[in-house]
Amino acid sequence: MSINRPVNIGLIGAGRIGSFHAQSVARRLVDANLVAIADPAPGAAEKLAAELGAPNAYTSLSELLANRDIEGVVIATPARFHTNIVVEAAEAGKAVFCEKPMALTLEDADRAIAAARAGKVPLQVGFNRRWDQAFAEGRAAIDDGKIGSPQLIRSLTRDPGPFDADPAKIPQWTIFYETLIHDFDTLLWLNPGAKPVEVTAVADALVRPDFADKGFHDTAVVTVRFDNGSIAVAEANFCAMYGYDIRGEVFGSGGMVTMGDVRRSSMTLFDKNGVSNDTWRRDTDHFVHGYTAQLAAFVEAIRTGEVTGPTGEDARNALAIALACVGSVSERKTVKLIN
Amino acid sequence: MSINRPVNIGLIGAGRIGSFHAQSVARRLVDANLVAIADPAPGAAEKLAAELGAPNAYTSLSELLANRDIEGVVIATPARFHTNIVVEAAEAGKAVFCEKPMALTLEDADRAIAAARAGKVPLQVGFNRRWDQAFAEGRAAIDDGKIGSPQLIRSLTRDPGPFDADPAKIPQWTIFYETLIHDFDTLLWLNPGAKPVEVTAVADALVRPDFADKGFHDTAVVTVRFDNGSIAVAEANFCAMYGYDIRGEVFGSGGMVTMGDVRRSSMTLFDKNGVSNDTWRRDTDHFVHGYTAQLAAFVEAIRTGEVTGPTGEDARNALAIALACVGSVSERKTVKLIN
Amino acid sequence: MSINRPVNIGLIGAGRIGSFHAQSVARRLVDANLVAIADPAPGAAEKLAAELGAPNAYTSLSELLANRDIEGVVIATPARFHTNIVVEAAEAGKAVFCEKPMALTLEDADRAIAAARAGKVPLQVGFNRRWDQAFAEGRAAIDDGKIGSPQLIRSLTRDPGPFDADPAKIPQWTIFYETLIHDFDTLLWLNPGAKPVEVTAVADALVRPDFADKGFHDTAVVTVRFDNGSIAVAEANFCAMYGYDIRGEVFGSGGMVTMGDVRRSSMTLFDKNGVSNDTWRRDTDHFVHGYTAQLAAFVEAIRTGEVTGPTGEDARNALAIALACVGSVSERKTVKLIN
Amino acid sequence: MSINRPVNIGLIGAGRIGSFHAQSVARRLVDANLVAIADPAPGAAEKLAAELGAPNAYTSLSELLANRDIEGVVIATPARFHTNIVVEAAEAGKAVFCEKPMALTLEDADRAIAAARAGKVPLQVGFNRRWDQAFAEGRAAIDDGKIGSPQLIRSLTRDPGPFDADPAKIPQWTIFYETLIHDFDTLLWLNPGAKPVEVTAVADALVRPDFADKGFHDTAVVTVRFDNGSIAVAEANFCAMYGYDIRGEVFGSGGMVTMGDVRRSSMTLFDKNGVSNDTWRRDTDHFVHGYTAQLAAFVEAIRTGEVTGPTGEDARNALAIALACVGSVSERKTVKLIN
Repeated sequence: MSINRPVNIGLIGAGRIGSFHAQSVARRLVDANLVAIADPAPGAAEKLAAELGAPNAYTSLSELLANRDIEGVVIATPARFHTNIVVEAAEAGKAVFCEKPMALTLEDADRAIAAARAGKVPLQVGFNRRWDQAFAEGRAAIDDGKIGSPQLIRSLTRDPGPFDADPAKIPQWTIFYETLIHDFDTLLWLNPGAKPVEVTAVADALVRPDFADKGFHDTAVVTVRFDNGSIAVAEANFCAMYGYDIRGEVFGSGGMVTMGDVRRSSMTLFDKNGVSNDTWRRDTDHFVHGYTAQLAAFVEAIRTGEVTGPTGEDARNALAIALACVGSVSERKTVKLIN
Repeated sequence: MSINRPVNIGLIGAGRIGSFHAQSVARRLVDANLVAIADPAPGAAEKLAAELGAPNAYTSLSELLANRDIEGVVIATPARFHTNIVVEAAEAGKAVFCEKPMALTLEDADRAIAAARAGKVPLQVGFNRRWDQAFAEGRAAIDDGKIGSPQLIRSLTRDPGPFDADPAKIPQWTIFYETLIHDFDTLLWLNPGAKPVEVTAVADALVRPDFADKGFHDTAVVTVRFDNGSIAVAEANFCAMYGYDIRGEVFGSGGMVTMGDVRRSSMTLFDKNGVSNDTWRRDTDHFVHGYTAQLAAFVEAIRTGEVTGPTGEDARNALAIALACVGSVSERKTVKLIN
Repeated sequence: MSINRPVNIGLIGAGRIGSFHAQSVARRLVDANLVAIADPAPGAAEKLAAELGAPNAYTSLSELLANRDIEGVVIATPARFHTNIVVEAAEAGKAVFCEKPMALTLEDADRAIAAARAGKVPLQVGFNRRWDQAFAEGRAAIDDGKIGSPQLIRSLTRDPGPFDADPAKIPQWTIFYETLIHDFDTLLWLNPGAKPVEVTAVADALVRPDFADKGFHDTAVVTVRFDNGSIAVAEANFCAMYGYDIRGEVFGSGGMVTMGDVRRSSMTLFDKNGVSNDTWRRDTDHFVHGYTAQLAAFVEAIRTGEVTGPTGEDARNALAIALACVGSVSERKTVKLIN
Repeated sequence: MSINRPVNIGLIGAGRIGSFHAQSVARRLVDANLVAIADPAPGAAEKLAAELGAPNAYTSLSELLANRDIEGVVIATPARFHTNIVVEAAEAGKAVFCEKPMALTLEDADRAIAAARAGKVPLQVGFNRRWDQAFAEGRAAIDDGKIGSPQLIRSLTRDPGPFDADPAKIPQWTIFYETLIHDFDTLLWLNPGAKPVEVTAVADALVRPDFADKGFHDTAVVTVRFDNGSIAVAEANFCAMYGYDIRGEVFGSGGMVTMGDVRRSSMTLFDKNGVSNDTWRRDTDHFVHGYTAQLAAFVEAIRTGEVTGPTGEDARNALAIALACVGSVSERKTVKLIN
């Protein structure tokens, strides 16, 4: 555990998760410097840079990429900009950490992967469950053969309610591209070596039924069959009134692992209403240590050139399932995946 | 809690669950007498009757139905005989408790229901989860509005492994007709008032892949959409190496209830291998109190003429989903239900 | 599992727990008849007998004991009457099940034991934890050597609040003689073969501090050292606002077992307040199956003459600790036990 | 969450926990620099300094204290040296973080407190439970009145086995001064405002009975009565074969909180042996985030001059109970505390 030369990081996109990642770089990682922030919104980069002591704030991406001190970038813009920024950053020779989804089409995914390869830069993607202690232990148990061959898999994401976003401002298919993409990566990661062959998805607007006929979905259930026979169900909902609920389950020929608990800690209250626990209410609380580990791995990837976290290929594989979901819901049928 | 005149019960079918029900009548219910057992296998009825002190043992159904002392029958034969026996028993004026599935076609279900109605006899069906304390509490919480409107529902049955039955002797579609039928009833029961509109099922032979091309299924996942928008997933597997795993989950607009734990009791062992609990290994252990309550309700139904447990109509409703599953798997498509 | 000739039971004392035991005999045990109830309170025995269909109701003990049909009695009077009734019943040739505490002095305990021996009747005492599934599994794990030699033991009883009894009507030392006596038996039972050598007790009136100077105790903590070196802590309180809390813990050289959970079932509610479970609120709910098993064992003891549950000697051993507690609190010092 | 000027820290004592704290300063805190390490063992400071990139390594305390760059010191030497080092460091104008126990006599505790006051330097003591999420939530619930007035309190420390230290090298009373001192602080911290009035302790050598007659103790149970009537039990053992077990429980007039779970994460394995979880095996794993938060608070104390964590007075209060335990075990009697 030696101390290394600090790595210089630039943040692109100073929104909610971008600000959190900037804090992680500046405040939770000893061997990374936050040297610049770029955001087109007037004052946004400047304000965050001032708070975190980052020396540079830009409103344009090109300025940030032109900064030769920066070795790696953290991309946390709206999803539709991700691919282009990955490509530009890779062309500028920067290591890239890109929030999920890295791309919204397979062509874009391929373009991002190719750019990173051409630029010889590490490309890591933001799938949070891989960095969670419980999920990592689950994967280790599977690797150790403790549950045999996976047969039934479950992964779910339920975002904490109340749901107060404006459905009109949420791009169609967000539940697949941005929410369930986590679960699709989880299904793939917890089913090592298996390839998805068939996807059936249903989606609806149950939280905001008034937007059901506007193409908005806040609830979805997806069934995925894999080439090893295993059958997986991924499930999402935008409004869990009890908190941020992230769970996984892998049942196999020899046993099962389950991961995830919405309870925040072991502190349990017993009173006249019964027994109770507080819950996780935000991803940045639940995954605070996981998100830090994720960026620490990115810092290490910058140093070594080796990506140990999820790669551009992983992002592409999860996206392929999300795209199949879109097809399945649109055409109301099962979609086969060509591997 | 007054003591009532004991009710006279006859058992039809002295197999595993039939013998257990006979024990419940003879040994766990004070106000029921086990007066007869019928089973075509030579000596089977006689042996069980001797063990339990039942005065009559028959090899034919008609003998038992002709016994005028008998007020109610418990039907625990192989599933394919259920409907005809229900009809004959009802015609003989006996109250009927029939193990699931009551019928394998909707016509048979209607026939059984009509016979009970014509005979003015109570008809109760064996869906075990309704009698489990945790599931009953879950339903009560839903009725009390504690989770709002159901949106995502899960029910699963995993039978304890190792799986040592001969797949060749198991009728096709057993996983839907005999195993998941429990879960279908659970989905309906925990989603009060909702009607299923669409069913998509996948099934495979993952436990015994050598029987995959012989129409055998040991693993299945079923998605059901209801007319209130809720989406349910039912799941079954014949070989859970860790025990008899029965769980339910209902997520709604205001919260969630979960029910079921494979851990057998609160006794927890901490040793050099970590923390561990023993598990339920058999339905007759897990549901011993539920199965007794189920028959106590049947005894009460005989007395009052009112069925408080699951009825012939409930059996028909669960069967409709099972039949849709068979269609869905056979034709590899989503099946709409006509309500 | 054969059916046996029913055994005829008489209940002595128609109070809360007596009525419950009478219901168990009449309604939950198939091979026992409740043939008589005796209670000096005018109408009490009669009312309960009518409810439960018991053919005889008496206001005097001697009448009941004179009833030659009665093979065994269940004694559930106030504690101070227990010993004399045990003796009289034994002299009348009745098998005896006596609620705890069987006696309040060692002389009385010896007298009861001697009477049962002289009368050649089974004598069983009401220690409820022995019949609880979790505690029984814990004891089995200890017997199997799974935790090595016991070193630290904990047993607690917390009665459900609110506490609305009149402290003035509760005999002094009740917390030791009637409440913690359960825990003392538990400590002995979970530490097989060990003998207590030293007891230090503290007690106070924390629930009703206004009665602190009247010799009333609602809270107590007892430390017991055993001749195998193990150190135990027993603890009681009369007012757990969250329910009826019964727990045990045995830590040994190789591991630990814990037993007891105030949560009523696996049904868990997740809502805007977090995660919650309902709790046990009454011993007769928590131990309903244990109390039935306890009386089933008594019925079996009547038949076989063999007591498999806690005996008069067990009652004496637990009492010895309770008496040491009284001495310890009175004299504010550690009390040595002579074995 | 602004970035502050980094604070310069020196480590005194490069043993197990000292090395861990050094890693925290160097690798887990962005706003602290590890500028020096002192340890009398030849090469020890140098080796750790090289690993962690600390520029200075000393074999003498005075050299380190003479380093004018150092603003605060972390004292992690054997306990018997703590007080003198606290005093010297305070006299040298360094802020002080001292591992528990800060002192072994009340005079020493007073001396340390006085030195910090005279030197106008912050003095913080290392009680780990205060920084654990669950314990902090428990204290918050108590402060919020959720359990009413504390009546029964429990705190325990069980160190992970196997126990392979040499009992001959462990100073007498270590179980009170070094292990249970944590629990005594916990009892005080979870019982805000209450003062201990009476202590009864028992201790034994159950892990290593061969050292029982040499004054070695590996197991202890302590009862503490407080001036608010509450009764607490603290308990320790050096060899929990199942891991590092840290728990707390506070029962009050309105309810209870429990804190601590030896299970390492929510990952649960279900296999043919039942249900199981891995456990915490080391304090530095269990408390990794707590230990970091502890030193982050110390860094903040250096900046602000305000100690928010446990103080010298807290150390003195916990020590008073430890000393009473020594008296209680030595004289085999209850010891009164003068407040």
